[in-house]
This record gives sequence, structure tokens and C-alpha cells, in this order.
Amino acid sequence: MNLLYAQAGGMTAVINASAAGVLAEARARGARIGTVLAAHRGILGILAESLHDCGGLDLDTLAATPGGIFGSCRFNMPPEAEQPALYDRLFAVLDAHRIDALLYNGGNGSLEVVAKVSAAARRRGYPLVCIGIPKTIDNDIEGCDCCPGYGSAAKYLATSMREVCRDLVSMTSRKGRIFVMEVMGRNVGWLAAATALAARDADEAPHIVLFPEMPFDEPALLARAETLLSRLGYCAITVAEGIRRADGSPVMARSHSDGHMRFGGAGGEIARLVSETFDCHRHYAAPDYLQRSAAHWVSAVDHAQALAVGRAATGYALEGRDGTVAAIRRLGDEPYRWDIVPVDAAAVANLERRLPPSFIAADGMQVSEAGRRYLAPLVAGERPTPCSGGLPVHYRGKPPRLAQRLPPYTGWAEEIVRTAQRD
Amino acid sequence: MNLLYAQAGGMTAVINASAAGVLAEARARGARIGTVLAAHRGILGILAESLHDCGGLDLDTLAATPGGIFGSCRFNMPPEAEQPALYDRLFAVLDAHRIDALLYNGGNGSLEVVAKVSAAARRRGYPLVCIGIPKTIDNDIEGCDCCPGYGSAAKYLATSMREVCRDLVSMTSRKGRIFVMEVMGRNVGWLAAATALAARDADEAPHIVLFPEMPFDEPALLARAETLLSRLGYCAITVAEGIRRADGSPVMARSHSDGHMRFGGAGGEIARLVSETFDCHRHYAAPDYLQRSAAHWVSAVDHAQALAVGRAATGYALEGRDGTVAAIRRLGDEPYRWDIVPVDAAAVANLERRLPPSFIAADGMQVSEAGRRYLAPLVAGERPTPCSGGLPVHYRGKPPRLAQRLPPYTGWAEEIVRTAQRD
Repeated sequence: MNLLYAQAGGMTAVINASAAGVLAEARARGARIGTVLAAHRGILGILAESLHDCGGLDLDTLAATPGGIFGSCRFNMPPEAEQPALYDRLFAVLDAHRIDALLYNGGNGSLEVVAKVSAAARRRGYPLVCIGIPKTIDNDIEGCDCCPGYGSAAKYLATSMREVCRDLVSMTSRKGRIFVMEVMGRNVGWLAAATALAARDADEAPHIVLFPEMPFDEPALLARAETLLSRLGYCAITVAEGIRRADGSPVMARSHSDGHMRFGGAGGEIARLVSETFDCHRHYAAPDYLQRSAAHWVSAVDHAQALAVGRAATGYALEGRDGTVAAIRRLGDEPYRWDIVPVDAAAVANLERRLPPSFIAADGMQVSEAGRRYLAPLVAGERPTPCSGGLPVHYRGKPPRLAQRLPPYTGWAEEIVRTAQRD
Repeated sequence: MNLLYAQAGGMTAVINASAAGVLAEARARGARIGTVLAAHRGILGILAESLHDCGGLDLDTLAATPGGIFGSCRFNMPPEAEQPALYDRLFAVLDAHRIDALLYNGGNGSLEVVAKVSAAARRRGYPLVCIGIPKTIDNDIEGCDCCPGYGSAAKYLATSMREVCRDLVSMTSRKGRIFVMEVMGRNVGWLAAATALAARDADEAPHIVLFPEMPFDEPALLARAETLLSRLGYCAITVAEGIRRADGSPVMARSHSDGHMRFGGAGGEIARLVSETFDCHRHYAAPDYLQRSAAHWVSAVDHAQALAVGRAATGYALEGRDGTVAAIRRLGDEPYRWDIVPVDAAAVANLERRLPPSFIAADGMQVSEAGRRYLAPLVAGERPTPCSGGLPVHYRGKPPRLAQRLPPYTGWAEEIVRTAQRD
């Protein structure tokens, strides 16, 4: 059986651990596996026939490297009925390299690619096993208790908030001080919620968490911030980038012409609002890409799960479980126990799992006890970071590229596909 | 000999390691040391007679905790000639607690406090030994080869940039992508320079570093960014928060009324400028307080130096080296060797050591080889992070407060001093 692995969507600190899992399991299954290839930049790389040989990779270094070493893309296949020629090309490439199984590692959109390609293969009578490997720091894939990538971003953000709390406690100021950390999450508050793990009591940061799932209530926020500023002298707020007002409009920086420094995004706007209302100092952190690539501080649980879904996907391929996702299932909270089960890709593709109301406290600005119980095990455990000269060692080569067997693609998506051949 | 230790200025990830060094050395010197007290929030805590007993502290937990557990302040003593009553109060408190030595842990401004208090004591015939313990992520104290706190912030930022590079390489896009990380440094580019350690060749991030020491050259930046975007498809830029145009005006976000998202600070402005000029995607990270409190990822060298300057300061106190700073001296680059020497506080107080021109590359937008040689050893080595439930364990108690022996202060700086009594 010949496998083709590919990475898609936004990156995480542990997606390469899933790649390492796929490859480790393939090596372990020796006799039953032929070649293992990887597409350069997801489905685009297949269309471009831009493929890597995965033979000689050092899996330990691979598993400690953030980003996706094979490259990613955000391209979703159009429906086959609309663009049959694109699917002709896809299956021509798969056939030219005798691919029996496609292992696609991505988020909600990528699972739709899995479902579409699986259905197209069946319609065409191409014997392909299509498996989804979940990945997203947003933790928003339905059918998965949690998603590889989330636990590490959660640990990084909760750790950062806990560390900043010690700094805030140290700094005195008659004016008071507001600190805002803006985290990723356009529609879902999973990462924002994770920062609540930093606090062990009501005095510790974050004192307030704002979720995209809750309409932004400005008077309630200001009332809470005022209480905190007067009681503690500081106030730390986690803001999900996608918070919205009750009318659905996003909260973001407004224009100013008074010469004041302007802030960007929702976090900057909240920092400005609170600091101008109460005339206090403001600080605004936006970790941005740092939160999804912090391989130096991954959750050992998350890393193990990323590896495990990769291994499971190779197993599912051998078992012919076409159209499924290797999903993590929770078996218990304390002690935390989990396993991996096949979930139907078509049933969960392109959905978006939001934070359940039971995970949000009654006031809408904190995480509930149920939410903490869910979150706590996902950030557990540390892993040593291979370093040289004090900085992490990553895989930074280019995996060898396979010779093309087909003439260059010249179809509908040529301009898009060409980006996959870059570098 | 009775010691009084205090923390001042902005916090670092390792200032408490210096506190632990002071206390460890005092415990080791047993017979010669009486009590060791700490002021609550720097010099303000002395004026407020708000003092801690340092007896039962666990030094290992202390040394792994970011922020300053005794609290900090940014108050500089006015000249004695202008406010003699403030100095009367200061020495009354020192005398009431039989303090023989003041160990003041801070940056440039704090060393001026050391020099002033030392001179006032001599004038008044109060037998006080005043010692400065250097601390600043800005690395800008004259007379010190490097400053405790800098190496850890440098390691954190260089690691972050190296990790983000793997993410950038992974993500394909026809439009291209610009990533900007804004780092602290209003007047000095030491932290910006440190991020250059992330890159091992010209393809790796950061591709451009903008320093406060160099006037911002917009055409040169855009020309360089265009080359990088066309060659690599992405471009990563480190921006020190304090970069200025040739006319001295700070670079920061301008007002927009076109409905576009606005960005804040210099980094946001650079991200906007490049992305609007070349119509590419933009991402903007501002680690803010995270970079100075990331105790989970300190430089082992920096941590050892922070501890060592604390130990040396206690030694200097016993030796009566009044008015000196325990400064780090470099003895060699490869292998890196250093020791600690006394430096005259008055001679280096309130100066600001900028990045030397020889550390900046000829084009003004990168770090030179000499700069890299200086920087490399400071980020070396990792330390295990004590964790519980996947998150760092910090000292979070309140050290016991000493009973006051004097009536409350009611002088000139009463309103300021009162903030030191908070919590």
C-alpha cells in the first residue's frame, strides 16, 4: 500500500508530530507499506504533482519542529460536478504514483476535502482510502473531544498569562494598570478559555475573559474592570480576536485624530476603552503566530495525541476505513484517559464547534468549573526541547522532491496550483 | 550586619534569582549577617516603612518566579538639597531597623538612587553600605557587559522568531506574507538585535531588523521587503518599539478612515506600510509583557548571572564597597567566560548604553558578525521549569510584613509613598 500524506490549513506546534506518527507507523508496518510520499503544500501539491519522498527523515527532529515541513495551503476543492477536470487531474497524479491512501492533516475545511475526494474516488471507481488527521489550535472540529495543536497553544497562552500576572502584581502605580492579551479565535473561544487555567484564585490573571460566543457587553466589562482596578490596582483581560457587539459588529480599534497612539484589533480596543475610561496605564500583548508555533513549550499530552492520530491514520488506511477521521475521544477527566476512534469525515466537515454554554461562567466573562475540568488535562506535561546554542533545533531542510511523471498542469486552477511549486 | 534588599524599575524573568542570590549568600555567611529585610515596592517601601522579613523563603521557588516578589516602583529620589525631609525619613526608617547595607536591584534610574542614597549617608555620617544590583531586559546599563534579565528576554524573542519562521515557510500564498514582531526598546535596540540569532542564513527570519539607533529609512525598507517577498514569498521583520524617522518623530500607526483594521505602535505601522504597498497578507505580533516575564524559557547563563550578581552584592556589602554596582565583565567569547566586578554607581547611573555601531550591519537593517559574537553566549542553556498540572509553579504568597516602629509618614511624597503600602 502506497501512502500520500499532506498538511493543510493554519499551522500548529505539533502538526509535524502527526506527520512523524504517520511515518513511524508506516515504518513499523514494514511489509504492508510500499512508499510513503508527502504532497508539497497540501492538495495543491497533488494537483501540481509536487511530491516529496519521506524516506530518510529523522522523526525525532521532525516531531519537535513547528510549522508544517511539507508546506500547507488553504485551498478547498470545488464540487466535482462544477470542476470535473480538476478531479481528473487529481486522480491522474494519484494514479501516476500508484497512491492507495491519502492522509490529509488539517482542520474543518480540510476534512471537507477528505469527504469530497473520498466520494469522488468512489464515483470514479478509483480504489483510494481517504483519511482525515485532525489539527487545529482552534479546537473547533466536531466529533473530536479535542484537536491536536490546541493543547499546546492553550498551554503557551495560559503559561504566558500566569507569568504576566507575577509582573502585574510587582508593579505599583497610583493610576492602576490594565493588561490585555488578544488570542486567536475568530468565531470560537477555546483559546481564550484556556488562559483561565492560569488563575488559581479570583486575584490572579486573567480576571476577565471575553469570548466570541458571548455578545460584548461594554457596561458590564467596565463595571467589572472598575471593581478589579480599585481592589487590586491592576486587571488582566483575555480577549478573543473575534469578539462582537450585540449587533454582530466586530470590536476593533476606532479611528482617533487626537494624536494618541492607536491600537489594533479587539484587544487593542478593549485596552484603549478601559484605560481611557479609568485613566489607567495600559499594556496590550498580541502573541499572534507565536501562540501556534511555540514548539519550545508544547503540552506533552497534546504532542502524544498529535503523534497518536498520525499513527492511527496509517492504521486506518491499512484497514480501509475510507472517509474517516482519526478522532480523539475522552474516556475520563481525572485521571485523564483518551483513545482514538474513527469518525465519519462527511458528518463533521466544515462544521464549527463553539464553546458550549456550560463552559462559560454565569456572568459571561469567565470559565466555569465544567470548562476548567475539560481544559486542565489538555495542557499537562512538558517535553524536553532539543537546543543548540540556547535556541531550538528544527528540521529546516527541504525533503527530496520526486520527479514528475505527468506533463505540467494547465487547467482551471493553474495560477493557484503554481504556488505549490514555489521553492 | 543587617541587610535591606529592594527591587525597582520594570520587571524581568530573573530578578527574583538575584533576590535568591542575595539571600543565599547571606545565609551562607551566617555569623556575619544579622537580619535580611526586603522593602515592599522599592524605595517607596522604605519611605513607607513597609518592610518584609525574608527569613523563611524557599529560594528555589523564588528563583523560578518572574516579576519581583517584593514589588517594584519607578520612584527616583529627588536631590537631597531639594527635599532633605525625604532623606530624613529614609534614614529614620533605616535606623529604626538598624540597617547597615542597602542592596538596590534595578536599572539605570535605580543606580542613581544608589548613588544618591550613598552620598546622603556619607554626608549625614550614617554608616550605610549602598550596593547596586543590575537588572534590565533593555541591556542598557553602562559599565556592565550585559545586564541580568536581558539574556532571557533575548532567548525568548529569538526562539519565538525562529519558531514563527517555520510557520511562515509552511504557509503558501500567491499574495505573499509579511510578519512583524514588535519588541521592547524605546531608545536601544539590544532586544531587537537579539532576534537576529534566530536566523542561520539569509532565508531565515528575521530578514530585517529595525533599531532605534538607526533613523527609519522607508524607501530602503520597502526595497528590501520587495526583494524578499519576491524571492521567498514571505518576509519577517523585527521592529523595536522606539524606531524614529530621520526628523526624530516616532514611527507609529496613522489614522485611517477607510474602515481598514488599524494597528498600534511601530510594529503595526510597519506591517501596514509593507502590506499596503505590496498588497500582501500581514501578521503583527506584540509580545509586550510576555517577553520580560517568560520564566518558563530563561537563558541558563542569564539566570546564573542574575543569581551571581545577587550573591556578589551581599559580599560587597560585607566588604563595605559602598556606592558600587555588581557588574558582569566578559573575559572571553568562545568559550564564554565572565566574572563580576565592582563598578562605581555614580559613574554609570542614568546613562543609557545604546547598541554600538559595530553591532549593526552596513545596511543598517541587520546585526553584524561582531554583534552576533556578543549576543550568542547570552542566550545559552536551558533550565527545567517547575510545573504543576502543566503550568509553571511560582512563588505567589506574600512575604511576612514587619511591624512598623515609626509613626506613619506624612511628608512631601505621602501620596506616592502610600501606593507602596497597598495590598
